[in-house]
Parts: sequence; C-alpha cells; structure tokens
Amino acid sequence: MAEKPQVLRETDDAARKLARLVFREQRSAAIGVLEPVSDGFPFVSRALLGFDIDAVPIILASQLATHTQALLADARCSVLAGRSGKGDPLAHARITVQCRAEPIARTDLRHARLRERFLRRHPKAQLYIDFPDFLFFRLNPLRASFNAGFGRAYALTGDDLLISSAAMEAIAAAEHALLAELNSNKDALSYFLGEERSDVTPAWQVTAVDAEGIDLVQGDAFRRADFPREVENPDDVRAMFVKLYR
Amino acid sequence: MAEKPQVLRETDDAARKLARLVFREQRSAAIGVLEPVSDGFPFVSRALLGFDIDAVPIILASQLATHTQALLADARCSVLAGRSGKGDPLAHARITVQCRAEPIARTDLRHARLRERFLRRHPKAQLYIDFPDFLFFRLNPLRASFNAGFGRAYALTGDDLLISSAAMEAIAAAEHALLAELNSNKDALSYFLGEERSDVTPAWQVTAVDAEGIDLVQGDAFRRADFPREVENPDDVRAMFVKLYR
Repeated sequence: MAEKPQVLRETDDAARKLARLVFREQRSAAIGVLEPVSDGFPFVSRALLGFDIDAVPIILASQLATHTQALLADARCSVLAGRSGKGDPLAHARITVQCRAEPIARTDLRHARLRERFLRRHPKAQLYIDFPDFLFFRLNPLRASFNAGFGRAYALTGDDLLISSAAMEAIAAAEHALLAELNSNKDALSYFLGEERSDVTPAWQVTAVDAEGIDLVQGDAFRRADFPREVENPDDVRAMFVKLYR
Repeated sequence: MAEKPQVLRETDDAARKLARLVFREQRSAAIGVLEPVSDGFPFVSRALLGFDIDAVPIILASQLATHTQALLADARCSVLAGRSGKGDPLAHARITVQCRAEPIARTDLRHARLRERFLRRHPKAQLYIDFPDFLFFRLNPLRASFNAGFGRAYALTGDDLLISSAAMEAIAAAEHALLAELNSNKDALSYFLGEERSDVTPAWQVTAVDAEGIDLVQGDAFRRADFPREVENPDDVRAMFVKLYR
C-alpha cells in the first residue's frame, strides 16, 4: 500500500524529521543504478551507507563492482533505505532517495573526512577501505519519497534531507577533537541517551557531529540526538553540550 | 566487499540451491525500475515478494505507484532480496535478479493462481488485493548475481532460479487440494520441519507446492523443503510425502 502516491500527505517538519532519522539510522541500503553493459538495465545491490557532514549519503565501492562502473558511466541512482522487523514489511518506514553520484578522489579535500566518518560508522571497512580500487561516492539527493507506513507517504526535496550551515567546514575541521571530548564526557552521553550515567557503557560512542546534532552508535544500535538549535561554530557545540546535559 | 566481481566463484549446485532459498524466503524486496517521468532515472522501492509455481517472482502493485507506471512503460527491472541481521550487512547473503516484468491481467488464466499463492504468503494483502487498480506482475528472471557473503559471489542464469516441470500445470490445478491434505497431516509436517510431532503448532502451514518441494510458513518464519527428486504429477506429491515422512 506503500504504493498509493495519490494519498500523499503534506510534508511537515515532523515527517521531514522522521524521514531523516529513518534514512540516517540505516547501516546499509539498496542502490539502484543503470548498468552500462546492458544498455541501462536497472541493477540494485546492497551497499554500506554513511553520511557526510552535510547529510549527503556516501557509499564506498570497488571500481570493479557493477554499481561503481554504472555510476561512473551515469551518475543517476536511487537509494532505498528503511526499517524492517516483524510483521508486514510495508508497515515499516522506508525512504527512496534519487541522487546524482559524485566520485570523490583521494586527492579531494573531502576524502579524509568521508573516510573517517565512514570508518566510525563501519569499523570493519578498515579491512578494505584503503585498497587502491576502492572509491567513495557522495550521492547528492535530488528528491525523495518517504513512506512511514500504510497511507503515510510524503514527497521530499533533496534539500529536506540536507544540513546546510555556515559553520560546516569549521565543525568538520574540529570534529575529531569534538568527538574525543564528547566521548569522554559520560554525563553528556547519559543525557543524550536518556539513560542513567551508570548504564552508559563505553560501547556507546558519538560517531559524528554536525551543525544540527550528533550520531551515537553502539554495535548495531543507532541514536540521533538533534540539538535544540543549529550551532554556529565548534565552541557552540561544546557550549550546547554543557548547557544541555547539566 | 560484496562488490568484487572479479572473484566470482564457479556456480555449483550448492550455490544455486542457496541462492534460490535466500531469494524465496524473503517476504519483501527492493525493486529497481526506470522512472518514465524523469527519462529513466532509477527508482527503487519496497514491495512484497511472492513466487509463482515455476519460481518466477511476483509482485502486486497499485497502478498509481511509481514502479507500476515504470514497469508498464519499460519492463526492465532489478530485484534485490536478501538476509539481514546482526553485524555487517555485507556478511549476509543477498541476490540481485534482473528481470523482465509481465503484467498479469485479471482475465489471464494464471491470475487466480498468482492471487492465491500471494495471499497465502501475505494474508494481510487481502485488504487491497482485489482493489481495481491493483495489478500483478510476473518478473521473469534473465540473470542474477548472488552474494553469499565476503568473497562468495556467483553469477546465475535466469533458468538457475526457475522450476521447469512437465507436471507444473497439473500440480497447479491440484495445489489447493494438496495443501489441504498436507496441512492436515501433522506427521508429514513434523518430518519436513524436523521437529517432534508434538512441537508442530497449527501455525505452521504449507503455503505452496511445486514440482520440486514445498514452502512452509509460520508468521515471519519460512522453511523450504525440497523433494529428493522432481515429482511427476500430483499423486506423486502425495506418494512422496507418505514415503518421506514414514
């Protein structure tokens, strides 16, 4: 029923926020591309999903893989990511994002940031992330279709999914230091996790900081904590943290 | 790592059998199509997955849905279905099947069969399966790419996924009666489930019979029991059952 776009609801902030969460919390996604060797036949495969500091989804793929060859020939792609679990698969929220893929060379200034963010989300990728044939793509969102369950479908713009902030580059430059500070601050972590300090195990780690909030990961579990307002610079993140959890 | 097709293994019977199981046991899949309104931009969405008696995957979709409009304009599509669970998503087996979609009108002789098979697998589809705008597609497999986990990639033909049998139509015609007989035979069910007779709850149901075996479903759980040899007619199914479980 997923599939009744005539009952599109108006896209409000609550839908936008849920769509972003459902997207960001997934560890993998189905990526649909146009296969060059078969004249553009669709090809869908599974890929690990990461996010850049502006919330653009990122994937890492071998240049020998079908979807890499496809994206280098035609940048148009579609990403499906969503929740699953017991019961009807169509009752679980999922999002389709149509994107234009941009390969990120190792010489690109953003490469180190993508590499670190991806590794923090997918530590096992350490085994192959530096293989010479592996390549990052930023999948720049053009538009999206969010389905929160039966009869709850919404159309989103690409911008609805993105984080736009004048402080982005400054936060990116400070992210490593911010993470170290946040991860050693058990009071703050317990606040953001909504758990007693004594229950916050060291396994919970802040894996990403951006102008709108932080990602927290423990094994397969994911939490997003949005700041009450957009931060303006790295010190503002620190101030926000102290202010919030105290 | 999924994505190193240069390390394709030779497709043997064990890989073929596992690929078919991984495909068939999924309740839903990601369907990639070419969106007509955007000049063939890929679009991937979630759909419930069923199987016809010849193992051709089937989907049910509203004619108003993006993927239905796409498949009616260009029949080329790709289906990604696979296991998920704890740990690295790329360690779990999944299969990409490239297919040519064939809409099945209500006047088609196969429609009743598709409808019954789909409903047995997805009872909740009863709510909308007969809506006038809903349409079945058989997604005829052309080729597939099976990934059983790191470094275990195989190429398959469409035929590798199909069940070809001279007895197909006869078994299809007798399927309803066979299911009633099998589902009332707790001894046989306990044999196929590998469980003690007393542990076989009525919730386990045989939902499909074909020339090569049966599907068993209990809520979200799925089992496939392959016959030791292909059956030649409906009575052969009955004989096989009696012979096997006794």
